[in-house]
Amino acid sequence: MNKMTRPAPVSEMLAPRSVAVIGASEDQTKFGGRLFHMLVRHGFGGTIYPINRKRETLSDIPCFARIGDTPSAPDMAVMAVPRDHVKAAVTECAEAGTKAVIIITAKFSDVGEEGARLEAEVVEEARRHGMRIIGPNCLGIISPANSLVLCASPALYVDELLVGRIGMVSQSGALMATLFDRAQTRGVGFSHCFSIGNQADMEMCDFLDFLVEDPATDVICAYIEGVKDGRRFMEVAERARAAGKPVLAVKAGRTDFGAAAAFSHTASLAGSYEAFEAACSQSGVVLMDDPDAMVMLAAALTRFDRPERMETALMTTSGGGGAITADRLTDLGLPLATYAPQTVAALEEHYLPDNARANPIDMGAAKAGGSMLVGEDSVHALLTDPETGVVLCPLTTAPDMRLLCECLAKGLARAEEGGTRKPCLVVLQPGQAANKARAELLKHGLFFFDGLDEAIRVIDGYRKLLTLAPPRGARGTSPAGAAPDAASGALDEAAAKQLLDGYGVPVNRGAVAQDAAAAGKVAGDLTGPFVVKVVSPDIVHKSDAGGVALGLTSAEEVAQAVTEMAARLGQSHPEARITGYLVQEMVEGELEMFVGARRDPLFGPVVMLGAGGVMVELLKDVAVRLAPVTPDEAREMIAGLRVAPLLEGFRGSAPLDIDALAEAVSRVSWLAHDLGPRFAELDVNPVLVRKAGEGCTGVDARILMEEE
Amino acid sequence: MNKMTRPAPVSEMLAPRSVAVIGASEDQTKFGGRLFHMLVRHGFGGTIYPINRKRETLSDIPCFARIGDTPSAPDMAVMAVPRDHVKAAVTECAEAGTKAVIIITAKFSDVGEEGARLEAEVVEEARRHGMRIIGPNCLGIISPANSLVLCASPALYVDELLVGRIGMVSQSGALMATLFDRAQTRGVGFSHCFSIGNQADMEMCDFLDFLVEDPATDVICAYIEGVKDGRRFMEVAERARAAGKPVLAVKAGRTDFGAAAAFSHTASLAGSYEAFEAACSQSGVVLMDDPDAMVMLAAALTRFDRPERMETALMTTSGGGGAITADRLTDLGLPLATYAPQTVAALEEHYLPDNARANPIDMGAAKAGGSMLVGEDSVHALLTDPETGVVLCPLTTAPDMRLLCECLAKGLARAEEGGTRKPCLVVLQPGQAANKARAELLKHGLFFFDGLDEAIRVIDGYRKLLTLAPPRGARGTSPAGAAPDAASGALDEAAAKQLLDGYGVPVNRGAVAQDAAAAGKVAGDLTGPFVVKVVSPDIVHKSDAGGVALGLTSAEEVAQAVTEMAARLGQSHPEARITGYLVQEMVEGELEMFVGARRDPLFGPVVMLGAGGVMVELLKDVAVRLAPVTPDEAREMIAGLRVAPLLEGFRGSAPLDIDALAEAVSRVSWLAHDLGPRFAELDVNPVLVRKAGEGCTGVDARILMEEE
Repeated sequence: MNKMTRPAPVSEMLAPRSVAVIGASEDQTKFGGRLFHMLVRHGFGGTIYPINRKRETLSDIPCFARIGDTPSAPDMAVMAVPRDHVKAAVTECAEAGTKAVIIITAKFSDVGEEGARLEAEVVEEARRHGMRIIGPNCLGIISPANSLVLCASPALYVDELLVGRIGMVSQSGALMATLFDRAQTRGVGFSHCFSIGNQADMEMCDFLDFLVEDPATDVICAYIEGVKDGRRFMEVAERARAAGKPVLAVKAGRTDFGAAAAFSHTASLAGSYEAFEAACSQSGVVLMDDPDAMVMLAAALTRFDRPERMETALMTTSGGGGAITADRLTDLGLPLATYAPQTVAALEEHYLPDNARANPIDMGAAKAGGSMLVGEDSVHALLTDPETGVVLCPLTTAPDMRLLCECLAKGLARAEEGGTRKPCLVVLQPGQAANKARAELLKHGLFFFDGLDEAIRVIDGYRKLLTLAPPRGARGTSPAGAAPDAASGALDEAAAKQLLDGYGVPVNRGAVAQDAAAAGKVAGDLTGPFVVKVVSPDIVHKSDAGGVALGLTSAEEVAQAVTEMAARLGQSHPEARITGYLVQEMVEGELEMFVGARRDPLFGPVVMLGAGGVMVELLKDVAVRLAPVTPDEAREMIAGLRVAPLLEGFRGSAPLDIDALAEAVSRVSWLAHDLGPRFAELDVNPVLVRKAGEGCTGVDARILMEEE
Repeated sequence: MNKMTRPAPVSEMLAPRSVAVIGASEDQTKFGGRLFHMLVRHGFGGTIYPINRKRETLSDIPCFARIGDTPSAPDMAVMAVPRDHVKAAVTECAEAGTKAVIIITAKFSDVGEEGARLEAEVVEEARRHGMRIIGPNCLGIISPANSLVLCASPALYVDELLVGRIGMVSQSGALMATLFDRAQTRGVGFSHCFSIGNQADMEMCDFLDFLVEDPATDVICAYIEGVKDGRRFMEVAERARAAGKPVLAVKAGRTDFGAAAAFSHTASLAGSYEAFEAACSQSGVVLMDDPDAMVMLAAALTRFDRPERMETALMTTSGGGGAITADRLTDLGLPLATYAPQTVAALEEHYLPDNARANPIDMGAAKAGGSMLVGEDSVHALLTDPETGVVLCPLTTAPDMRLLCECLAKGLARAEEGGTRKPCLVVLQPGQAANKARAELLKHGLFFFDGLDEAIRVIDGYRKLLTLAPPRGARGTSPAGAAPDAASGALDEAAAKQLLDGYGVPVNRGAVAQDAAAAGKVAGDLTGPFVVKVVSPDIVHKSDAGGVALGLTSAEEVAQAVTEMAARLGQSHPEARITGYLVQEMVEGELEMFVGARRDPLFGPVVMLGAGGVMVELLKDVAVRLAPVTPDEAREMIAGLRVAPLLEGFRGSAPLDIDALAEAVSRVSWLAHDLGPRFAELDVNPVLVRKAGEGCTGVDARILMEEE
């Protein structure tokens, strides 16, 4: 395959001199009809070539029977022809000199192997001619910034496309159109929206690359089912961050059921969500659970400055709405603002002292009871309050909501004239009763929320943005001089510990003995008390099988324990291959932790840290990062765990050795990294952590390596 | 005060022969003007008496200067006059023989003591004449079922009031109007809505009582800031449950910030949210976090049968929307359905085999690609699937959403004709692009959601409804023969344990000694190992102060420990009064639990159970019930804890003595109950739980009693 290496010509695709619509017609129940209609409707400034054998003109625009008949090669073509005609149409486009084609048609790699083969042929055909493909199985492009619509969605039956500074890339076409429409109805516009479908040729990162450079875009939204190239995704995200453009993402398929739903539709490789989450966190991507909230956060980021602090001031029209909002923010640990004295003084113009200090500010409780005019001064006071990061106005019905919204817009404008561009999020909770208020906000260039859930998700998203880990610095170098050498298959405890020891990960001393006498001899060289564990590839749960003996205080007890263990296992596991008995120093610690690593198919090795023992399953408390991590990053992993208080010193107990644990996590991550492409899994569990300064010790370990 | 005992005449208030509107006018910017307008607009069938000195008629209806001038006593009066005129107006109404009056006017007990005094005078005045009051500080009544609107909200500027079978009681007027309007816009109507304000006379339970009996109401919604009478609330909820009417509630002020917001507006007593939650759980009330979702769950419960199982089938128009929905349900532990063979067979008419088995069913992947007509058969197949409890259709944009919704309505109708009335929840995610689809659903008598959050909250609400604890049976009798006798103040460990022992709660043996010699003697009568703890009202954190010695194996060691402890404390706490040294048997156990009790100001004594030690703070894992509880209820408390797996036998470890723990919880709850109104707090912490059959033991305890 003649793989293209030149940069993706997205900017060219957004500014075509001419577009061919294959299958254009006047029948708007058909894709081709709607594609043609929308291109005309939304004022495309270039030449349109409708391709239709049966017509001379469409809307006074001359038609052509074949794409080869057009007077010049179209820069772009868009098609929604039946699947079995796609390849021939692609050939025609390519031979005519078309630079890029959007294939709406579905049922390629999204439906299985036969479709995937056909898709590969189509791509091969295009690449042979240097033509690029968006799709197949996509909805195309909506570019309000460029007045270019190459999309057949009925969501585009609107008079005007709101232009905003949000760029969006979506693996789901219908979802993109839905988000576009929902946003536009609420006063939120986009620069460009790309539905990328099966990414047979051009993939998500091509579009993200473009948006990072695009002067019309300030914030980037991505709906992701599966990433094709994990490291490229991180690189472009890091570039966006360096350019000051937030990247917001929703990843479908976080859960098994979600993944089953998502991956039946795309041919993307399924990495683990945890690895994706780690990649986002480490490259500055804000992950959201809800696509509508993602778009609204983008809207807030393009309309207002980023908040500098998270304290939220609430302004309401009823006590009930305010109380529920305060509860919901508090549930999520989002703080409510306490106002500065000058703010209280300003509010006391309109409110009794107690009400002027309250958060929420209840406009219904103003001295001029029920007057909407207090809205202007109230919102101005809150926006200019130095202790407040965000102003949230969840509005229930009021005597005149339109007037109230006019006053809010005035107060906001006054604050902005004074140089404050703090976020002011307005939620219009009623149904039709708020329609005039909605129109009023739109008139002032303000967007709104229709419900509390999305607004609270946006504030939570602000927090995620403000608490992103700093950009990753240099990784440093591996603590081991030479690349480790590991056999294939499951490495037993002894072999795993040898590798860990070579990386400076503290493990307890010990050795494998073949029989009771040898075991006693091993113990003689170590410091008691001792533990004995059977070494066998056939016995997975050693404790349950009676293959572990603890608290042995002398070489004699060790020898005796091996004799008894051999007899017991000979009866209970007669088939098991027993390769020896591991005699080790028994280790004590204050807390059991778990350190592990896995290879993610998309992002490569990841390192994991969590509470060990029963806690890990009760708390589901695991931190994941891409390997290798520095000790500082490992400390961040520790700080984010729910068990962090136990490590930091809980209710007066002594703090534990976080430094040693962080060092061990970093070294394990390097080992996973250095073990190379055959590395599959690694567990050090438990790692016993002692008091600060006393270190930690891994007391069991295993490593799984794949075959060459 | 002449307290009324006759039942609240809510049904009479909803069917007045005549209504006086005090301050009626044509000026709809005023409350009186809107009250009059809405009453006329929505077709009140009785006589209206506008009270207005300056007018002869209003809209051809004769006006009266004073309420005493009306030809007959009005059954109801409604007023929004300035606060300082309320009392005189109430007197006029009462003297004219009015049966009940709605006072919209605010700034009574909602703004402090002066307002509360005035409110009490107003109530006293009304009661002297046997007149009832709704409010003050309320929005009145909206009763679509009775075509009666005694409410000035602009939300009522609609042509028609949708009649539904949902009754609503709200402590917030603006929130009620907002919920009413939002619901009506989405196709959901009510029987009656009551805004009850300060509940100066008639309180929430009066209206709940009515709704339980009301034949026009099937489901009851309550927005609650504070309950006035906890036990009455539980009784009416239990009656509603017996009548087969679900009660759904949202309680504002769950958190400290929410409570601050809620209670600045009402004069309600603030019990703890945990006690309220326990009361709801024990009396069958479904508690929700979001009032819109509460109304939508009520809508679903009145429109469809209650689901019999929680497995949800998803039907979507795009893979993306489906994947996100599947993720969100899975996050909450809500199960996705696996279809029965006949369902798959029916779906295979329209889908390829893999797609016919998928959940979500993606209509976009139907064999007749993009045809909306598959919607009818698809939804019918899912609704009639025996493995499915709920059908959820999160719809993104599609070629013809209106037609799709028509097909869904047909499929649903076919299923209902066949006797299946399973919930079918439709979410229309786009903005304006779905407006025709919305109208289509309304035409078919179907309501819709505008976003996923509310629909998922509704499904979660179904789960709460299906998993309500069974109605409380008899409480049994106290395990102690006589009421316990306890001094006032903080009881020390020894005194607390004596009370617990009297109730059969296992505690470890021990006694207080005054000095080292006596301590050794105490130990001689017990079984070692021993623990010694200082007894002092001045030393709270005994361990930290060096006032605890563990693991003493003989009487001599006990005596020695007391000698050393006395010396140490004499130096470190020279001011502390030391009343002795508690010598106890040292107890072992597999797991530390915590059992406690508190008096709630609204609901009386509650019993609490949670993980002890560090777990309680890490997991925030506490079950609360109103005391007393039976051992069976205590077992339910245990089963609901996050640490339940540790008690039930975790990863092959032995199950612990749940029976003994449940018995102890029940006995502690009886003790808290029997200690009477002076009881404040009780803690048994830790309770060490041993393996099944080996019991549990409380090893530390304290009780706080208030003064007489």
